[in-house]
Amino acid sequence: MTETVDFPEFDPRSTSPSGGWLSAAQIREIRTQLPIVYVDAVPVRTDSVGDVIQVGLLLRVTEHGQITRALVSGRVLYHERIRDALLRHVEKDLGPMALPTIPASPQPFTVAEYFPTPGITPYYDPRQHAISMAYIVPVRGDCAPQQDALELSWLTPEEAMHPDVLSEMAGGQDVLLRTALAHVGRLA
Amino acid sequence: MTETVDFPEFDPRSTSPSGGWLSAAQIREIRTQLPIVYVDAVPVRTDSVGDVIQVGLLLRVTEHGQITRALVSGRVLYHERIRDALLRHVEKDLGPMALPTIPASPQPFTVAEYFPTPGITPYYDPRQHAISMAYIVPVRGDCAPQQDALELSWLTPEEAMHPDVLSEMAGGQDVLLRTALAHVGRLA
Amino acid sequence: MTETVDFPEFDPRSTSPSGGWLSAAQIREIRTQLPIVYVDAVPVRTDSVGDVIQVGLLLRVTEHGQITRALVSGRVLYHERIRDALLRHVEKDLGPMALPTIPASPQPFTVAEYFPTPGITPYYDPRQHAISMAYIVPVRGDCAPQQDALELSWLTPEEAMHPDVLSEMAGGQDVLLRTALAHVGRLA
Amino acid sequence: MTETVDFPEFDPRSTSPSGGWLSAAQIREIRTQLPIVYVDAVPVRTDSVGDVIQVGLLLRVTEHGQITRALVSGRVLYHERIRDALLRHVEKDLGPMALPTIPASPQPFTVAEYFPTPGITPYYDPRQHAISMAYIVPVRGDCAPQQDALELSWLTPEEAMHPDVLSEMAGGQDVLLRTALAHVGRLA
Repeated sequence: MTETVDFPEFDPRSTSPSGGWLSAAQIREIRTQLPIVYVDAVPVRTDSVGDVIQVGLLLRVTEHGQITRALVSGRVLYHERIRDALLRHVEKDLGPMALPTIPASPQPFTVAEYFPTPGITPYYDPRQHAISMAYIVPVRGDCAPQQDALELSWLTPEEAMHPDVLSEMAGGQDVLLRTALAHVGRLA
Repeated sequence: MTETVDFPEFDPRSTSPSGGWLSAAQIREIRTQLPIVYVDAVPVRTDSVGDVIQVGLLLRVTEHGQITRALVSGRVLYHERIRDALLRHVEKDLGPMALPTIPASPQPFTVAEYFPTPGITPYYDPRQHAISMAYIVPVRGDCAPQQDALELSWLTPEEAMHPDVLSEMAGGQDVLLRTALAHVGRLA
Repeated sequence: MTETVDFPEFDPRSTSPSGGWLSAAQIREIRTQLPIVYVDAVPVRTDSVGDVIQVGLLLRVTEHGQITRALVSGRVLYHERIRDALLRHVEKDLGPMALPTIPASPQPFTVAEYFPTPGITPYYDPRQHAISMAYIVPVRGDCAPQQDALELSWLTPEEAMHPDVLSEMAGGQDVLLRTALAHVGRLA
Repeated sequence: MTETVDFPEFDPRSTSPSGGWLSAAQIREIRTQLPIVYVDAVPVRTDSVGDVIQVGLLLRVTEHGQITRALVSGRVLYHERIRDALLRHVEKDLGPMALPTIPASPQPFTVAEYFPTPGITPYYDPRQHAISMAYIVPVRGDCAPQQDALELSWLTPEEAMHPDVLSEMAGGQDVLLRTALAHVGRLA
């Protein structure tokens, strides 16, 4: 999960289409009452025949000072299409010149169910129950990490599967990364 | 969308895991602020080699007295896995003896994005922005329509594609049904 | 099926890796003994968020002088990867400047089973039993029809679904086109 | 690859629809000239909500006396539908009481490209270039290994992912197994 500002549209003074009287306490309450819709994007570099040659991982520092690697991830907003959310989050994390190819099909390669309780699925998010549709997103342009990401590293599938790299991913995103590489035929 | 009681877990006196102080007004408010996670299930009868020979459609009467045909559909609850939600909704609509085969893979065949505004996608739900992961669900047992469904009708793919049948489906579920039949190779 | 020269590698004087003593009669015989591996590609134009806005259809004249519309289609050669076959056939039919995005994943959106006997599946090929893995292929560049194609026409999904257009497609490719549009969420 | 008798339909005295004059030498020749169509099936046991709890692996002895574990795999015959080939191979390897649920959709979870040259893809078959569409096949009944399989072992996803088990699989089927477990959300 890469979002730092998660529920901007609940700002009572600006964007709520219907009055926006939910308080911060109520927002926290909603997160304990409803699954929240997310998208995960796995940025990849492909060669001329579509074969994945590199996968992009964001390097971040958590609020506890720990280094983590992460996929592009974020919430789908009210009245936002999945493909618009995918582009928004990719551009937010990789910059406006990334030139991503958003998938033509809405069919995700998997759905990651992040539970606030560990062990129910491979995915875990202490803040919420997030249901995240995950997509492979080839990017052709120049990527510049934005906001809170320190660095974007491009790794070969073999490098990305290294236990040291996988151990730096949180919330089960190592499983999601391996699932993505399986989907593109690059598990080995 | 087949749910008649949509947000039972918000009942302040019973099931809310965190106190449940959201009122009915607040529930309506949430629906204007967040996309709601749904599943759609297309019940099918298959032959011994998996070929779809019939699709099950629910016959319902809307609050305005109109006859409609519908797929099995409903919300994913907080802290509920997608596969548990699928089983719950199939059993709710088809009865406890339906013997559904819930898919092994979380990959849906499509994602239907129901917008409260018509025309943005083929899917429309005036009440909310619902994001629905759609699955084919073979059923082997006896189906008995439950709750508000008058009847369950089993139609061949050819019958289900008839314009008269498709015109009785609301909110774009005719498109979802045709997408399902395309996915199982039974568009023609 | 768009191939005009179908079994070039059987040329006894050139490309057979093991001696190539199969005669033309033997080649015809093979086609009555084994299913032949094909790929079908549905060329599409997408907008910045991946939504399909146009689909490309090849206009051809059959050996009987009939006008037909066709998808990009062709055989996978011995020792050729599927993704290499996809690129080769797209470039053969759309020209070298088409800039196709070959899918990262080997998972096809469907498999079209062309039988020499009509009615077993929606797909029919009187010459052979062809098993064709079908992929959506976005193209970004300039397309120039090659070889025996008279014209490449770009149609909106709505135009492509018109009965007049679908009726100009042979061998069940109208079903394949509709299946493709279903897969990308553009059936309606 | 689990087939022991691979090209029975080439028997010149019985099943060839067109005369069947191909000799054994010619059959070997075909295998060096054309990719051969295969299916791979991953037999699984699922719980009531479709979650994979066990995967079935065949224990075999190779012609060199080595113990190997294998998935269900075999060729698609001329004029045979993929779903018929899947059922035939599952029944051949697991027995007639396995009660498999052949997938409703022809969309495989991946396509394994077995090359006669190692290193081009993760999949290798020294005999031929086989293109294998791979499917998850839940089985509900009693399985009895047939023919040349010594034993059928049911392993949990965790057991099946153990390096000792994976190392007993040949031709890249360990990669295919892990890809299957990724697809059903059981990679971890």
